[in-house]
Amino acid sequence: MGFPCIGIEIAIGIGIEIDFDTDSDFDDHDHKTLRHVNYGKAILLSRFHAKRGNQKFAILGQPPSPPPTNKDTSMKIRLIATSVFASIVSSAAVAEEPVKPIRPPQTINLAQAELGKKLYFDPRLSKSGFISCNSCHNLSMGGTDNLKTSIGHNWHRGPINAPTVLNSSLNVAQFWDGRAADLKEQAGGPIANPGEMAFSHTVAVEVLESIPGYVREFTQVFGTDRIDIDKVTQAIAEFEKTLVTPNAPFDLWLLGEEDAISEQAKTGYALFKASGCVACHHGEALGGTSFQKMGLVEPYQSTSPVEGRSAVTGKDADRFMFKVPTLRNVELTYPYFHDGEAETLTEAVDVMGRLQLGKKFTEEENEQIVAFLKTLTGDQPAFVLPILPPSTDATPRPQPFSD
Amino acid sequence: MGFPCIGIEIAIGIGIEIDFDTDSDFDDHDHKTLRHVNYGKAILLSRFHAKRGNQKFAILGQPPSPPPTNKDTSMKIRLIATSVFASIVSSAAVAEEPVKPIRPPQTINLAQAELGKKLYFDPRLSKSGFISCNSCHNLSMGGTDNLKTSIGHNWHRGPINAPTVLNSSLNVAQFWDGRAADLKEQAGGPIANPGEMAFSHTVAVEVLESIPGYVREFTQVFGTDRIDIDKVTQAIAEFEKTLVTPNAPFDLWLLGEEDAISEQAKTGYALFKASGCVACHHGEALGGTSFQKMGLVEPYQSTSPVEGRSAVTGKDADRFMFKVPTLRNVELTYPYFHDGEAETLTEAVDVMGRLQLGKKFTEEENEQIVAFLKTLTGDQPAFVLPILPPSTDATPRPQPFSD
Repeated sequence: MGFPCIGIEIAIGIGIEIDFDTDSDFDDHDHKTLRHVNYGKAILLSRFHAKRGNQKFAILGQPPSPPPTNKDTSMKIRLIATSVFASIVSSAAVAEEPVKPIRPPQTINLAQAELGKKLYFDPRLSKSGFISCNSCHNLSMGGTDNLKTSIGHNWHRGPINAPTVLNSSLNVAQFWDGRAADLKEQAGGPIANPGEMAFSHTVAVEVLESIPGYVREFTQVFGTDRIDIDKVTQAIAEFEKTLVTPNAPFDLWLLGEEDAISEQAKTGYALFKASGCVACHHGEALGGTSFQKMGLVEPYQSTSPVEGRSAVTGKDADRFMFKVPTLRNVELTYPYFHDGEAETLTEAVDVMGRLQLGKKFTEEENEQIVAFLKTLTGDQPAFVLPILPPSTDATPRPQPFSD
Repeated sequence: MGFPCIGIEIAIGIGIEIDFDTDSDFDDHDHKTLRHVNYGKAILLSRFHAKRGNQKFAILGQPPSPPPTNKDTSMKIRLIATSVFASIVSSAAVAEEPVKPIRPPQTINLAQAELGKKLYFDPRLSKSGFISCNSCHNLSMGGTDNLKTSIGHNWHRGPINAPTVLNSSLNVAQFWDGRAADLKEQAGGPIANPGEMAFSHTVAVEVLESIPGYVREFTQVFGTDRIDIDKVTQAIAEFEKTLVTPNAPFDLWLLGEEDAISEQAKTGYALFKASGCVACHHGEALGGTSFQKMGLVEPYQSTSPVEGRSAVTGKDADRFMFKVPTLRNVELTYPYFHDGEAETLTEAVDVMGRLQLGKKFTEEENEQIVAFLKTLTGDQPAFVLPILPPSTDATPRPQPFSD
């Protein structure tokens, strides 16, 4: 009896090599976590499956200076996971598959990510003081709000389904229509969108500048106490880069663990490839790398006013072109499609088959593909809930009911 | 160079005694944490300052059975902190003070608390699927929403300021008017309040019953797969009991660390006692133990329709009687009073002095009291953000825009 597994926190010194001994009998729920502990604040860097094989990670970087300082104390950490990912690269089986295991982020600025985590959870970046990034991209719920379309300031009904923030660093562009080139550009959008956080970048920065805890941390991270929206979105984006979800059962199977997924799921994956789903949903994220027309073989019927990429390009040919969503963690990111109209995976698979591939999956086939899709749920972000630095007498107050 | 401090996680076996060696030079940011790791899920049990003295804790209890099982696998854990709290009890200095250091919870059912943490963060307990307990009692923000009055379903403007959930287990009763006897009774209120989470207990339970991850955990915790609102609120309340905030600088001072607070704060505390504030704000929580009239010496002017305890008792004499709020973490729980009309501590101290004590504090006195109040910020809850079990095809969907 007792506890089948233990969590391990490792305080990592700069340049220290850490040998993970993975001979112990951890079960599938176990992870070894790398934490960087900075002035008493723990950052979860990434999560690695510890079930098999010896893994060696080296942490390289510059140590932070003690706060407060106006020296640039940012830190570049490179994670070199020599054996696991060497084995990924060298595995013939993986190389042949159109779906690839997720790699942890290769380069993270930890100090920025830790600051970005606070900002991600801080509703003071909204006019109401009530809505944070995490409100609609809830990291307890697959990085989404699990609503058809999102709720914004003053209970505004948003036009579109909130895409997951998980693995979003793997997207070719951000938003369904790809109007933001990257996560940094994306992060500024909702803050200033009147139907979302309804704030202005100027006032958001004023709020942060009035909070000594933030001023100190921006100084530490960016080497200057001058806060601007560029630094705010940079930090949020850096945090979001950490939100990858490794170790899905399907990845373990790709890496050679034959019993990591069921026979039904394996059949589903074969069908997923043979039917053509994989043409758009491939790579590490099974999506996110192209724009495709929703309703290719048969038009998509929707009451949604959203028309996709044409809003960005102005081209009629881009009407109803949307970024192909990732299928990673798709069991968690319901409901589906840009309008959230497909409530279940069964429905989504059926509609995709008919409209995109001209194929009506049988009930058995549908179940097989759904079984495969459910093997794509990886390790969810695991970190300590951030504690936000308090406002001061000088902080502009939230205005939840002003209009 | 390097890291001045490290975090330590300890996986605790049942009945194992743990000796904390506190001879190392941890700084003030350091804490040793006791964690119970249950099937891969970490629960932060409590937080203890590790700066001085040898501390010995014994963890006693019953081990959980592996899930799923319908055996009652709940676990009673008693924390016996032999030396620290023996020293509290025996300290003559502390015994003489009307303010007492916060004690960690003495008896926690860890499995219930872990389940309750998930429920606390789960917006599926609201009609919209958007509002959780944490929305208005945000554990990143002192257990409050830092709004004058709260935002509810459909952006409803609530009538009252959300009191902090931190240390709320120390309250004589819950809500400003004390209409709930305890945390368990309180937890059911907002779920069914049309202006808050706007749900019904029946549908909330239906939602949970449709989610296998919850059914499994309720079975494990309560020994039955029959979920009801009684078990839901019991688990939430048990989690809330863990939300105490020990190790405030003022507590360290009470325990003999002379330089834990400034001379200004000490003067402020003396003034706080001499002026009579302490008559209502005393004990571990500096409040929460009595109902008092708002506007004792001079009437309180407010546009708020709320009249306090008379709504519960029906007695005219109880009009404007409110539960005295805790002053723990008061720097984080702005704005102040039942109507949230005092935006700053300076204003709150000034109003309290005039209306409750008939005393106009000078600017210097006000600053001294505020300096004292800011020493009451303790260790904030530190735990890994919970990951919620996903809904299924059978789960009733949120209805954010149905009326």
